[in-house]
Amino acid sequence: MTNKVKKISLLGATGSIGRSTLDIVTRFPERYQVVALGGGRNISELSAQAQRFRPQLLAVQDETGAEELEQALNAAGLKIPIMVGQPGAIAVATLSEANIVVAAMVGAVGLEPTHAALKAGKNVALANKESMVMAGRLLNEVASANKVAILPLDSEHSALWQALNGEPESGVEKLILTASGGPFREFSLAQMAEVTPEQAMRHPRWDMGPKITIDSATMMNKALEIIEARWLFDMAPEKIEVLVHPQSIVHSLVEYRDGSVLAQLGLPDMRLPIAYALSYPERLPLDLPKLNLAETGQLDFFAADEERFPALALVRKALASGDSGAIALNAANEIAVDRFRAGEIGFLEIAKMVAGVLDEIVAQEFSTLPQILDFDAKVRQSLLNSGN
Amino acid sequence: MTNKVKKISLLGATGSIGRSTLDIVTRFPERYQVVALGGGRNISELSAQAQRFRPQLLAVQDETGAEELEQALNAAGLKIPIMVGQPGAIAVATLSEANIVVAAMVGAVGLEPTHAALKAGKNVALANKESMVMAGRLLNEVASANKVAILPLDSEHSALWQALNGEPESGVEKLILTASGGPFREFSLAQMAEVTPEQAMRHPRWDMGPKITIDSATMMNKALEIIEARWLFDMAPEKIEVLVHPQSIVHSLVEYRDGSVLAQLGLPDMRLPIAYALSYPERLPLDLPKLNLAETGQLDFFAADEERFPALALVRKALASGDSGAIALNAANEIAVDRFRAGEIGFLEIAKMVAGVLDEIVAQEFSTLPQILDFDAKVRQSLLNSGN
Repeated sequence: MTNKVKKISLLGATGSIGRSTLDIVTRFPERYQVVALGGGRNISELSAQAQRFRPQLLAVQDETGAEELEQALNAAGLKIPIMVGQPGAIAVATLSEANIVVAAMVGAVGLEPTHAALKAGKNVALANKESMVMAGRLLNEVASANKVAILPLDSEHSALWQALNGEPESGVEKLILTASGGPFREFSLAQMAEVTPEQAMRHPRWDMGPKITIDSATMMNKALEIIEARWLFDMAPEKIEVLVHPQSIVHSLVEYRDGSVLAQLGLPDMRLPIAYALSYPERLPLDLPKLNLAETGQLDFFAADEERFPALALVRKALASGDSGAIALNAANEIAVDRFRAGEIGFLEIAKMVAGVLDEIVAQEFSTLPQILDFDAKVRQSLLNSGN
Repeated sequence: MTNKVKKISLLGATGSIGRSTLDIVTRFPERYQVVALGGGRNISELSAQAQRFRPQLLAVQDETGAEELEQALNAAGLKIPIMVGQPGAIAVATLSEANIVVAAMVGAVGLEPTHAALKAGKNVALANKESMVMAGRLLNEVASANKVAILPLDSEHSALWQALNGEPESGVEKLILTASGGPFREFSLAQMAEVTPEQAMRHPRWDMGPKITIDSATMMNKALEIIEARWLFDMAPEKIEVLVHPQSIVHSLVEYRDGSVLAQLGLPDMRLPIAYALSYPERLPLDLPKLNLAETGQLDFFAADEERFPALALVRKALASGDSGAIALNAANEIAVDRFRAGEIGFLEIAKMVAGVLDEIVAQEFSTLPQILDFDAKVRQSLLNSGN
């Protein structure tokens, strides 16, 4: 038991990870305190959070939001500095009072604040998978140089972390990421071609926001998680596999070289991996509904189908193309998902667009953030220019 | 990697655990060497093992076996000292050259050699569950006083050990032992009443010898494992549960206080837990068939039915009756199984006989081996006298 209160800077406060993080803070006020909150455009939620947790600093996406938030706080008799955009997010990520940064923004925009937090010597609990996808090599170097840790928040990576705990690295044979298979797990290719954005945004199990929900439907989410796992656990890409498990009870598994497999299981609830990252190596007595396997009755497992879910083949290609491959895959996917949501392309064209970009890529490794951001921008620009 | 060869004394060499242990030794001759072998009545197997592994000492159950073994070794031009009975088993268990004793005898007869091995400062890899059932408290004290470890060999306890690895004890909420449910998992009580010894000795999955196979059919095996887990992991009995899992892929699970569950999985093969105990904390690169969950497809779980399997209720009663309860349960069960095999009592009467003995027991704790053996003998004597 530690008596020291952990001070948390939270980026992505109004999203589902952010709200779950605040739920844990609320349950353990003697252990955690929120010192800064960064949000996007959900100003009413952020205002309510600010009134409840009284952070020292707030950040929002744009000026309009900042004004709205200031008025809401004024009305509540509160005065808290409000910052805007990436400088705001970076200020939240580097606030000197913070011991740990929960990085739960969505998309590539999360990379700079994550990098800044590590550079400022903060441990980072990372839900923003794009950070590791785009810059895993660099972030590991920065974390190591600053003697801080990158702690996984995804349920899958938290499961791997838990199943690896206490084991000598030499014995690890394989990381097996489970995947729910998304809403179209049993769709034929012909059915998939007809999928609308509305269908793709209705995930059977999780409420995660539109981008991640669509990534889950294409299984691009799992592709990104493979890259994330590759860096979080310093594991060769060919040792990372995907296993479809529709019930989402087994959150992931580690196979050891003796053939033994360790798995982490639980009811699907993001508060569990969040609490684990915040309390590690201890575990908090979370009073949440518990898994009862006799009630669950049955767990099913299927091989992933790379024909219907080409994202899983594309990620192998991306990983074989160095840092540039992973960045290109992520950038192309973000733009493709935007176009799909806008009704400009069909569901199956998301993967095709990513494949087209990967075909053009020259393998490169990047050792600085500007190189990474520059390459990311180039990929996006060329896609936008081509209108393709 | 250690360069030191581990020297193994193996008790129960010709049984299924013993043979699997020797398979591991054969696969890793640079790591393991057999220095002593103890067997029962399968002299031809023991002779073949002795010729292959050239131990310094042999032990067999009786004089007839010793003579037969001596002749066989003479014919092969080998001269190895042969000892007989409990003194022989104890000599194997305490041989000064041995670093580790694999205790794989079946039944209460395994207790004295296990105790002697720990007292002689040997680590003990324990498959003889009766040792922990009868004398868990005492054996833990002896192990601790001699700074040696008791390492589980049962697949269930090995699974718990692996799922507990690296975790602070304070976070453990529950140990969940899986059970195949045995061959009569779906039998009604009426069907069970008609079960013959031949039926009970045909286990669907494992080849383990008649006593353990019948214990598996009554689920008394799982009752004994609860007691074993209670002492191996120093866990309050009410925190140990049983979950029926017919496929025997999930070997057991640990629930933590945050609701997270860690499970160890693998194809059912005793060589895996044996190798883990011999190589811990490393894992050996075992070239055995690997679990492929996509091929397995489905894992099923059921609550254990204490009406049809009263052993699971009896063990709670036994554990509430101190050390004497566990000893009485084990002794009564051994005699009842003998009578069932001899056709003297029916299948359902095994548990009834155990229940009758537990009804008579006064709760006692024992701090010495003679007290334990004396109480064990009294229980057996009174059962034999009563003819009941």
